[in-house]
Amino acid sequence: MFTLGVSDHMMVAHSLRGETFGPAQRLHGATYEVRVEVRAPELDADGIVVDIGLLRSVLRLTLAPLEYRNLDDVPAFAGENTTTEFLCRWMHGALAGQLGVRAGARLRVTLVESPNAWAAYEGDIG
Amino acid sequence: MFTLGVSDHMMVAHSLRGETFGPAQRLHGATYEVRVEVRAPELDADGIVVDIGLLRSVLRLTLAPLEYRNLDDVPAFAGENTTTEFLCRWMHGALAGQLGVRAGARLRVTLVESPNAWAAYEGDIG
Amino acid sequence: MFTLGVSDHMMVAHSLRGETFGPAQRLHGATYEVRVEVRAPELDADGIVVDIGLLRSVLRLTLAPLEYRNLDDVPAFAGENTTTEFLCRWMHGALAGQLGVRAGARLRVTLVESPNAWAAYEGDIG
Amino acid sequence: MFTLGVSDHMMVAHSLRGETFGPAQRLHGATYEVRVEVRAPELDADGIVVDIGLLRSVLRLTLAPLEYRNLDDVPAFAGENTTTEFLCRWMHGALAGQLGVRAGARLRVTLVESPNAWAAYEGDIG
Amino acid sequence: MFTLGVSDHMMVAHSLRGETFGPAQRLHGATYEVRVEVRAPELDADGIVVDIGLLRSVLRLTLAPLEYRNLDDVPAFAGENTTTEFLCRWMHGALAGQLGVRAGARLRVTLVESPNAWAAYEGDIG
Amino acid sequence: MFTLGVSDHMMVAHSLRGETFGPAQRLHGATYEVRVEVRAPELDADGIVVDIGLLRSVLRLTLAPLEYRNLDDVPAFAGENTTTEFLCRWMHGALAGQLGVRAGARLRVTLVESPNAWAAYEGDIG
Repeated sequence: MFTLGVSDHMMVAHSLRGETFGPAQRLHGATYEVRVEVRAPELDADGIVVDIGLLRSVLRLTLAPLEYRNLDDVPAFAGENTTTEFLCRWMHGALAGQLGVRAGARLRVTLVESPNAWAAYEGDIG
Repeated sequence: MFTLGVSDHMMVAHSLRGETFGPAQRLHGATYEVRVEVRAPELDADGIVVDIGLLRSVLRLTLAPLEYRNLDDVPAFAGENTTTEFLCRWMHGALAGQLGVRAGARLRVTLVESPNAWAAYEGDIG
Repeated sequence: MFTLGVSDHMMVAHSLRGETFGPAQRLHGATYEVRVEVRAPELDADGIVVDIGLLRSVLRLTLAPLEYRNLDDVPAFAGENTTTEFLCRWMHGALAGQLGVRAGARLRVTLVESPNAWAAYEGDIG
Repeated sequence: MFTLGVSDHMMVAHSLRGETFGPAQRLHGATYEVRVEVRAPELDADGIVVDIGLLRSVLRLTLAPLEYRNLDDVPAFAGENTTTEFLCRWMHGALAGQLGVRAGARLRVTLVESPNAWAAYEGDIG
Repeated sequence: MFTLGVSDHMMVAHSLRGETFGPAQRLHGATYEVRVEVRAPELDADGIVVDIGLLRSVLRLTLAPLEYRNLDDVPAFAGENTTTEFLCRWMHGALAGQLGVRAGARLRVTLVESPNAWAAYEGDIG
Repeated sequence: MFTLGVSDHMMVAHSLRGETFGPAQRLHGATYEVRVEVRAPELDADGIVVDIGLLRSVLRLTLAPLEYRNLDDVPAFAGENTTTEFLCRWMHGALAGQLGVRAGARLRVTLVESPNAWAAYEGDIG
């Protein structure tokens, strides 16, 4: 199994609903380092999983509408708790739709929210 | 599949028995960065795998009795070779017991012992 | 010259005033890794610059009132642009006041706001 | 499942053939951080997956003939596009042959080519 | 004293002349992480040392002509040994010319060439 | 001013004397990442501060007698409190003696003892 990974980041504000979140119920923020990995059982004719430049562009375009935003005000997240896990799955969906269906390929999105906490979501593409 | 991870560290002394270990048979020490990841197929009602604050507390409480200790003198490890792999599995057991049984969840414990060496153990919770 | 350094982090929201800041004028957020270094020409009787545990506690207590906050609403920052540079100097002042005056000692505060941007302020203690 | 990992690095030049690679078709270079992980379901009699010293030596010996080389001139890669993915699989083969066949063991090789791009190959040993 | 820092990277090939360099006399390559820090005794009217976006753009534009190149063929480096130290000073000059003269400001350029080696050059701007 | 830096690491045990050190008075251990930087106002005839290979060898030879040791039993440290600051200064002296006297050169030794604590000593060479 092959993997190709790239990373980028975004700086956003948000708040979380529910007593579980304690002080994180208040409006705060995070720098999320976003790591995206595409996994495939075989390489293509160029000897790659996916073009690094393409994957970086797709990631950048996906993060751009969220950059320097308060996620509590982003329509796509209305009514949702934007936990790190939720954001990982949302980005998985947004990225997978742009990468096209490829037999057997999988996509993993990891968000690092601090030097000692992170979350990830992994699933099929398409 | 979702993942939630947190990290902490501990500073301990120990020695290893067996010619395989060469100079590491002498009493020496290590700063272990400990990375704990819980994996689950679904999020709970709060939209998380597990509460970050809870996972950090459980990890801290698990490391506390080992901190600033010579592992050769820790009763729980009597007669054992405290290799990095062994410590990963031991922590997996100690942490899993505190996290409770959750259907389909898995736990991965990684110990980074130096800038270029690490070990991990992954298994079911419960 | 000796240096002793410790790090911690905080997750906050804020916005910046002024066209210079472009999209960062919108309410957004950051995970700031905070690195604090004390420099002194000589060691004390214990052979240290400052006690690591003490420095960590002072740093934690300084960050606590800001954690999970919108800095735009923090009274101490009323009327200020909470740029990374400003926050470094503010923390320098807050920390220096708790460390006491020590002849020849200096304090450096670095805030890392993303994988590729950071700021720092260095000055005398006292 | 247990994992034991070590890392090293090499500095090489190369060029890539195919329009997909854009500017990387020109002769350029990379520092590759090489991370090698051996995974096994059980520990051996010494309580380890594999001896760290042995794994480091095998990795160093595998990288040595490539160090400070232009990969375009290395006979082993004649006619090949030395993409990061290709190099991961090649190293997997080179390393697996030296580690011997072990029931159920797997080997993962990751090459980090820059602060925001990496590739990996994982497969059985033997 | 305030500092504002940003980082970027480039992937290049080159060779070094002189027996001192041993195997690095052969054509090889490197991923250089480039860290640029501007230091100034005072903040400007916006409360910053220099605009992060501006500094990033200036750094990107400076690296662009070198990206995916063999430095042995770059006219600006004709007859020079492109050691890491030399490249740091060259970038200092190239960047300083674009940042303008500012009283008391200094510029530090660090190139990280591998996980365990780096070089830097620091001097006045203008 | 130019800087050339290299890093290595060692794994040792030790204990500290004095109530200031709290639990670190017990025998424990650390993985110390050791970063060594040589600073000089001018480059030599090869266009470098110091040969990277030489600096790495000198560092390795300096760490070798301490590797996998209990520092409490190392004769060179008899009667000393092997704090991180002390070890930085000791290594500064050991390294400076091997690098020779060079006009205007300085040496900085940093020991990173955990993900959030480090110390350094900087002084002239010779």
